[in-house]
Amino acid sequence: MDLEAELKKRCNAFNNYWKKFLPEGGPADLYNAARHLTFGGGKRLRPCIAMLSCKSVFGDVESVLPFAAALELMHNFTLVHDDIMDKSDMRRSQQSVHIKFGEPTAILAGDFLFAKSFEAMHDLSVDLSMFKELDYSLIECVLDICRGQQLDVEFEQRKMVTEEEYINMINKKTAVLFELAARGGAIIGGGNQDEITACAGYGLNLGLSFQIWDDYLDISSEEKILGKDIGNDIRNGKKTLIAVYSLQNASGENKKILDEIFGNRNASDDDIKHVFRVFKEMGSIEHARNTGFDYIKKAKNALNPLRDSEAKEILMELADYSIQREK
Amino acid sequence: MDLEAELKKRCNAFNNYWKKFLPEGGPADLYNAARHLTFGGGKRLRPCIAMLSCKSVFGDVESVLPFAAALELMHNFTLVHDDIMDKSDMRRSQQSVHIKFGEPTAILAGDFLFAKSFEAMHDLSVDLSMFKELDYSLIECVLDICRGQQLDVEFEQRKMVTEEEYINMINKKTAVLFELAARGGAIIGGGNQDEITACAGYGLNLGLSFQIWDDYLDISSEEKILGKDIGNDIRNGKKTLIAVYSLQNASGENKKILDEIFGNRNASDDDIKHVFRVFKEMGSIEHARNTGFDYIKKAKNALNPLRDSEAKEILMELADYSIQREK
Repeated sequence: MDLEAELKKRCNAFNNYWKKFLPEGGPADLYNAARHLTFGGGKRLRPCIAMLSCKSVFGDVESVLPFAAALELMHNFTLVHDDIMDKSDMRRSQQSVHIKFGEPTAILAGDFLFAKSFEAMHDLSVDLSMFKELDYSLIECVLDICRGQQLDVEFEQRKMVTEEEYINMINKKTAVLFELAARGGAIIGGGNQDEITACAGYGLNLGLSFQIWDDYLDISSEEKILGKDIGNDIRNGKKTLIAVYSLQNASGENKKILDEIFGNRNASDDDIKHVFRVFKEMGSIEHARNTGFDYIKKAKNALNPLRDSEAKEILMELADYSIQREK
Repeated sequence: MDLEAELKKRCNAFNNYWKKFLPEGGPADLYNAARHLTFGGGKRLRPCIAMLSCKSVFGDVESVLPFAAALELMHNFTLVHDDIMDKSDMRRSQQSVHIKFGEPTAILAGDFLFAKSFEAMHDLSVDLSMFKELDYSLIECVLDICRGQQLDVEFEQRKMVTEEEYINMINKKTAVLFELAARGGAIIGGGNQDEITACAGYGLNLGLSFQIWDDYLDISSEEKILGKDIGNDIRNGKKTLIAVYSLQNASGENKKILDEIFGNRNASDDDIKHVFRVFKEMGSIEHARNTGFDYIKKAKNALNPLRDSEAKEILMELADYSIQREK
């Protein structure tokens, strides 16, 4: 199977549908800011997962599109606000919204996308009690995302974070939305309780692995690949799994280097390379990779109860892909 | 009638109800930031309007409380984010959320309140189609608030804004939420179409007048009364009705003073006093007062179709009060 082609097909179908939620409009700057990141690329992973989960329980993919749009709008809202908080200048190989449009408009564009997410939910053609259930799930999901992002912000100020705390943080910040994508897709697709639970388990574990891999990529790739600032996370003292493992286990010279450079906003590019080397020597990068692999195994196992289908197969391959991707 | 006592009674009933949406919780900073402004005072005007509109169509006030909570949570979310955009250090006589908790946590606390607003809607015990109608109205309302706030931000950069543009801006930024409060209260209270329209017209015009008066108070009161920075609006070039009228009509020496000082972030306190004097001499403050009075008249006239009731009477008095208040 050509996974990328399968994803692209669904991504295109989704893109054709959801653009209606963000037409051009006024005030122009607000709309342009809301459209800048939203239509400036992105893998549409959450919509694809929702569509595939729906299909994996033999549901009608068309029916899940409004929900998929809500997820992607919500995801983009969090990116816009997160980039302000993290002071990230680049996203998806272009300027972040707050750099291009200024911070006030970026805050508003995020709020706008937030509201648009709930607007998209109203396009669902499901019975009203299912609408209410999904709408409530989306709300609880955003509340968790806020909690997770707050933990992420707080962790930057802390010297030490345990691996358990880290997993709890990315669970809220990232995995709950993947979990909702998969669970909601199965609900809308008419799956039974076992199938819904199977998809939810898949989404949750995929989300955990996805975030671990994302942090890994930030550390290990070059700026041109990711469109993000290299060293930004290290200068900010961002508690990725790689950092958490290193900080917990470092001793001697390695500990000294981390103490001096990690979280130091004035660190030079050479300093950053020192930290990279410590991460590598300590096996922290390998540890993060292995942890990511473990969650991927769990994600795939979660799908076992589903009947065989092309969609199930794609979900399986997507799991493997999510920790091989380079962007 | 003792209006303040009547409002206080409803305010207390509301406060007893809605606190459950923001219990103490973790991460502590996020919850404390979300609770800081929310429970740190405020007139609960929007909830009171919703409760009174409901009662004015002889509905059950208890049934409107979740909707009232949603309105107040939404209002507080906008205040938290607006204060970041406007760089306002004070709100309700205490530090703004972003000053006390830092900007990242303030952005998140706003997002959290936003989601909590939609969570409160799910507490409504109305039939599902009414829930969906009100939920959709709330979404459209927030989208308008974003548009209005964006206009407000953009207007600060512009030399000139017409009175029509100003009214359009405050209509979106402020009046739509008042309109929704009054309309939604009447809908939940079981009002007929005429009654719903009457209440909506009341809310809209009250909201316009309220914002005009708010701007007037910012200009004319002292810091200790309002808990806001004096001169902040003038230094930021904020286009209040008073400013708009002055900029449109100033000539000679007055025009020169406005050109030099209005929108000048480095203006001294003496400069600010000069601008105050120009506003007064040109009759701009009087003009804003009169415009506010006109909208109050419209708000009260809108209520004519309603049957007589204590609630209607309170709404009438509230209209008058809204342009006599000093905070």
